[in-house]
Amino acid sequence: MIAITRPTLLLSEAICRSNIKRIADKAKKSGVAFRPHFKTHQSHEIARWYRPEGVTACTVSSVKMATYFAEDGWNDITIAFPLNIREIGEINRLGKICTLNLLAVSAEGIMELSKKLTSPIQIFIEIDPGYNRTGLKPGDHNGIDKIIAAIALNHLLIFKGFLSHAGHSYKAHTNSEIMKIHDDSIALMKVLGDHYRSLFPDLVLSVGDTPTCSIADNFSGINEIRPGNLVFYDLQQSSIGSCKKDQIAIAMACPVVAFNEDRNEVFVHGGGVHFAKDFLIRVDGEISFGEVIKLKDNGWELNSTSMFVKSLSQEHGVISASADDIKKLKIGDVMGIIPVHACLTADAMGEYMTLDGERIRMMSKV
Amino acid sequence: MIAITRPTLLLSEAICRSNIKRIADKAKKSGVAFRPHFKTHQSHEIARWYRPEGVTACTVSSVKMATYFAEDGWNDITIAFPLNIREIGEINRLGKICTLNLLAVSAEGIMELSKKLTSPIQIFIEIDPGYNRTGLKPGDHNGIDKIIAAIALNHLLIFKGFLSHAGHSYKAHTNSEIMKIHDDSIALMKVLGDHYRSLFPDLVLSVGDTPTCSIADNFSGINEIRPGNLVFYDLQQSSIGSCKKDQIAIAMACPVVAFNEDRNEVFVHGGGVHFAKDFLIRVDGEISFGEVIKLKDNGWELNSTSMFVKSLSQEHGVISASADDIKKLKIGDVMGIIPVHACLTADAMGEYMTLDGERIRMMSKV
Repeated sequence: MIAITRPTLLLSEAICRSNIKRIADKAKKSGVAFRPHFKTHQSHEIARWYRPEGVTACTVSSVKMATYFAEDGWNDITIAFPLNIREIGEINRLGKICTLNLLAVSAEGIMELSKKLTSPIQIFIEIDPGYNRTGLKPGDHNGIDKIIAAIALNHLLIFKGFLSHAGHSYKAHTNSEIMKIHDDSIALMKVLGDHYRSLFPDLVLSVGDTPTCSIADNFSGINEIRPGNLVFYDLQQSSIGSCKKDQIAIAMACPVVAFNEDRNEVFVHGGGVHFAKDFLIRVDGEISFGEVIKLKDNGWELNSTSMFVKSLSQEHGVISASADDIKKLKIGDVMGIIPVHACLTADAMGEYMTLDGERIRMMSKV
Repeated sequence: MIAITRPTLLLSEAICRSNIKRIADKAKKSGVAFRPHFKTHQSHEIARWYRPEGVTACTVSSVKMATYFAEDGWNDITIAFPLNIREIGEINRLGKICTLNLLAVSAEGIMELSKKLTSPIQIFIEIDPGYNRTGLKPGDHNGIDKIIAAIALNHLLIFKGFLSHAGHSYKAHTNSEIMKIHDDSIALMKVLGDHYRSLFPDLVLSVGDTPTCSIADNFSGINEIRPGNLVFYDLQQSSIGSCKKDQIAIAMACPVVAFNEDRNEVFVHGGGVHFAKDFLIRVDGEISFGEVIKLKDNGWELNSTSMFVKSLSQEHGVISASADDIKKLKIGDVMGIIPVHACLTADAMGEYMTLDGERIRMMSKV
């Protein structure tokens, strides 16, 4: 086991590369382009692991993140977040050095963009497939037409197609619920594609969230998928059936600092600033911020412990344990913990450590 | 107004310095030492704002943070987190260059520390005043005596006193509940002090959490207070009566990127990776991740809007608004939002911007 002194985010490169390969293979087999979302890992080095699988385009969630990946040679980037016109300066710089795809949710945004645009940009219109976050309703042809008209007024803008994120799949409970969301989302995107393809024969239909892309095999009629979380997976994804626990590529390593035998609690260094604070409700009704696994020299083992993280303060993690669990532990041991939400844990930690002890950097917070 | 392009954590230096001065003055008047907790701001520059108020000692929550502040000349530091013996290397380094106070919760931890200790260290024993996190029960003289005996076996260790954190005050609802927690905590610490002072006449009784230190005026019998959050305050503190809203020193500035008129929602760039995910329950029963205020050229104004952040995904913030609110807004506006928990928002953001547009750096994540 590598030397752990403080809360550390362990990354199994083997599991991670296997996760990437599985989805890349599925995309090839299904005839869809794979444009993975890089907001989960936010790392130049991990992004490079997609290259051997033939991935040449990526998705990000902010202009800052687009700049970060463009700096490492990614030259076809979709910012899957509604256009922020205050970042026009950086958008113009990026548009000069790479193929930049932005997300429109209103004609107003496109008109504001047009005023100061100096570089060519491609525009996806965001469609809400039932997640109820941003995006136009698929039947809102009037709204869509207004955006397309605004795009047509500026020769630097090209209408690229429709993009949706079925984020409601994260709240599914079973594979069949996930498949229902997938089928419905694909169907409504296809109807939209059919409606507009006569005018725009090359339009792209882009979908993508980890649950549906993990479970589904049929993407017929769709051009592109954009899942991100699948690079690591996490406890939340395994709880809804997107992955098996042995496909989760990251685990926190946290030193044990205290016990409370009366309350059957183990205290570790590892709190809200390390795990972030997404939680899930266990089958026993308890709130969990992570699940304990057994760290080994070459990774970790999914043992039969029932230990889980029951609460987090800024630096403290409180683990619910049995009296037997506590007897086997001592101050200075290191607990392995699978986090609930990989994206937010990685963002909170700011770097990874491979099982060989190599540090992998991420985009800086500032 | 300074130019905002992406989510930015604004800091009013004037409010912040006024918050520091108010508590420093109270400490002087009450005859207690003020050893502020720096985990809230994690910033060299903000730490220096305590110096004019006579503050020469500080509290931190990790060895890493102790190192960070020692590098800027702080030479009397308490790590108010249970001793992590895996960090013995860094503890020995720090013990050579500053007065380092560590927190013991077990004799076992002290014995492990002793094996590899090469520098002088002072030890506080953590007492649990009813928060039910770490620390010994105040009546556990047997456990306390064992720790003191373990300290006495090593000439590099000095028993400094007792330290408690009444973190249950954060869950109080009224000032009288906070005062009850304060009085009870002080009382039990004094009993403990009286019991051990015959053997250790110079022992220090250290307490400190923002709610009790904000509300209480009487710290008689106590030697030291360690509040941290008061440097900024936040929505949670104002909701329990620790501060008034005009004493909150920070606000997020987030660009508006979309609207949903059907659901009365405003979407901003500003999500879980910016705010972190602590929330509070409003009086109307709704969950809130932050409250909208009105940004102005020289800061912000606590207007009568009822807009609040109803949900957060990784980069999206969803604001609950009225139809009237939405009419007054447009794409590209900047929303000011008071965060629920200043410590975690600051940690997630990684830097501040003053109202003059100056960037203030924080400790790096890595």
